Amino acid sequence: MSKLNQIEGIKIGTSSSHQKYGNRLDTVLVEIKEESKLSGLFTTNNLKAAPVQICSKNILSSNKNKKYLVINAGNANAATGLKGLKDCEQINSFLSKEFNSKKNNFLPFSTGVIGKRLNIPKYKKALIRAKNNLGKSSWKSFAESIMTTDSKIKLIKKTIKVKNKRINIFAIAKGSAMIHPNMATLLSFVFTDLKISSKDLNKLHKLACNQSLNAISVDGDQSTNDSSLIVATGNSDLNFIEAKEIIEKEIINTFKELSKKLMLDAEGSSKLITIKIKGLRSQKLCKKMARHIANSLLLKTAFNGSDPNWGRIIMATCNLEDLPINPNNITLKIGPHKVFSQGELSKNYSESKGLKEFKKKTIVIDLVLGKSDHSFEILTCDISPEYVRMNADYRS
Amino acid sequence: MSKLNQIEGIKIGTSSSHQKYGNRLDTVLVEIKEESKLSGLFTTNNLKAAPVQICSKNILSSNKNKKYLVINAGNANAATGLKGLKDCEQINSFLSKEFNSKKNNFLPFSTGVIGKRLNIPKYKKALIRAKNNLGKSSWKSFAESIMTTDSKIKLIKKTIKVKNKRINIFAIAKGSAMIHPNMATLLSFVFTDLKISSKDLNKLHKLACNQSLNAISVDGDQSTNDSSLIVATGNSDLNFIEAKEIIEKEIINTFKELSKKLMLDAEGSSKLITIKIKGLRSQKLCKKMARHIANSLLLKTAFNGSDPNWGRIIMATCNLEDLPINPNNITLKIGPHKVFSQGELSKNYSESKGLKEFKKKTIVIDLVLGKSDHSFEILTCDISPEYVRMNADYRS
Repeated sequence: MSKLNQIEGIKIGTSSSHQKYGNRLDTVLVEIKEESKLSGLFTTNNLKAAPVQICSKNILSSNKNKKYLVINAGNANAATGLKGLKDCEQINSFLSKEFNSKKNNFLPFSTGVIGKRLNIPKYKKALIRAKNNLGKSSWKSFAESIMTTDSKIKLIKKTIKVKNKRINIFAIAKGSAMIHPNMATLLSFVFTDLKISSKDLNKLHKLACNQSLNAISVDGDQSTNDSSLIVATGNSDLNFIEAKEIIEKEIINTFKELSKKLMLDAEGSSKLITIKIKGLRSQKLCKKMARHIANSLLLKTAFNGSDPNWGRIIMATCNLEDLPINPNNITLKIGPHKVFSQGELSKNYSESKGLKEFKKKTIVIDLVLGKSDHSFEILTCDISPEYVRMNADYRS
Repeated sequence: MSKLNQIEGIKIGTSSSHQKYGNRLDTVLVEIKEESKLSGLFTTNNLKAAPVQICSKNILSSNKNKKYLVINAGNANAATGLKGLKDCEQINSFLSKEFNSKKNNFLPFSTGVIGKRLNIPKYKKALIRAKNNLGKSSWKSFAESIMTTDSKIKLIKKTIKVKNKRINIFAIAKGSAMIHPNMATLLSFVFTDLKISSKDLNKLHKLACNQSLNAISVDGDQSTNDSSLIVATGNSDLNFIEAKEIIEKEIINTFKELSKKLMLDAEGSSKLITIKIKGLRSQKLCKKMARHIANSLLLKTAFNGSDPNWGRIIMATCNLEDLPINPNNITLKIGPHKVFSQGELSKNYSESKGLKEFKKKTIVIDLVLGKSDHSFEILTCDISPEYVRMNADYRS
């Protein structure tokens, strides 16, 4: 049985490398007990940072040894070419000797400025200090250490009871704040003491990401370093197969809550907008359309200015290359109100209804574009007031 | 021989409908002499405004009658469904009687708010006043009348001499100012007295647009009303086939100058950025990549903050869905300086070189992504200072 506020077999050590952030924590080591199951998902950007290249390879190692997460904030070690890869390998070799463990048991993660080499001596010193702190540092200090331009930590701790057995789910992330897009990296770490097979864990991870971390959009760019990790120690008495659906839902919800925390910390934004797409030929197309609409600069300004400019939503919907949409097949709802269908404005819609919805902190846009049951939902945000101020009163 | 500052056979009449813009001009009639050649290119947005639907049909009529351009600013008559189409047809019927000419000789253009019905009585009255002014209004008043959120008129008048013969090229446009994206419509009208066949004119129009109006990007959205028209009266003694290359170049340059005027009036922007892409499998792919990079919010902020953040350029390049780019095949130049090649930073590049380029009003980004000779060049702009101020000093 796991203790409350702890996941047995996970030891955290944090420290500062005394670089970009002065004395703030920016270095983390996490020791993960033998026989844990790990699953990683990484950026699809063709430019993968050195740590992503090495981590995605090492995580496939099937040995049952202890594993170590090696995380730094401030430098992404991306677009650093072969030299960057060698730097990352040098750190792993160094830790391999320190811990007397194989090199591929170390999983590196970096977030920060692109195109700058790591300061190896300073990083090594910080890692030694983190090693000395192993088991003494808190989850909170872990969450603090990976922040770059985040304004607050993202940490979730949950203990749930299923079939009279307990499991813990602890989750930590750092985000991509729109106003600080130098560091759009998203790092997410979810730990649980659930018993689960590697195969089921991978499946669950993909399922959860697809509905959460892969369904948020701040500025439309994907980072070179985006990584999501899930670790299951197996220490709990509860086995995944005993209560698949319940646990699946809990894990997915944790990922969704983490995503929401990330979106709420997108600085310069004041609203959360859900865009629901339904009826296209496949879920992939629904997702493509949802992302396209979520990234429309014209819409992001309308959201911010509380301008229920439904014309822009229709325009963006009809404006996705290689995906012809017949405007007559569009049904648009803003909140509960039907706005547009069969090619024109709905009789019962009025500007004041739209305005009421757009003035809310959370806005729901619902688009049915065809008859299929495929759908996708994305979470996005508006853009900064300053940018919009000049044109927000245009229609008045 | 055409007179200077006039194109014979083109009569302009402008007026005000006394609606959205008070007493400002917002209505234009243009009478075009018999046997002129016309070519139109229209938005590829699946939601085409009523005037676009009717204009693109009417322009195909091969009769040799006088033609009339019918233009209003303030209301786009878009997303107005069947009712909007009927409104537009009603205006054409009305003018057909007024001028005793077939309905399909009238070519409607609208720009303004989406989703609002035209005020037919006011528009008719304005058109009668414009009719009474036919031949009395100036090119400048034409350019003024079609403005929406433009801060200045876009008007070019050129007389060129080829083989001792003269041709006039007059061009007018209204733009898509980024800070006023309610009216992102682009209308462009080019008039010349050149002698040219319909086939050659269409070809030339496409060629010119592809390198100009289709190669600019302010905010990435294409309007419901975008239209480009070119009119050749044939009054000049010069025939296109006498000096194809020279004339082609002159017309293309006129379109390019017009595009530049549009970009320079994109409010909230302070810089012109040229993005050159070369080496992908087709020109279409080069164009897709150029647009993708031009629309990156992260890059637009870097341009504005004069932050030579080449990492973002590489990141955006590697981040186009369904187009895998190997970072090792990227050669990036900022201005004359090679920045990145074979997967890493160039030895001779320094931050101060990049900074010098990024501080200029015009920035050139040059990306070679493969060995083919296909290429595409796009003109884009940064985004507003206010939006960026909060994060521009991040790397310092």
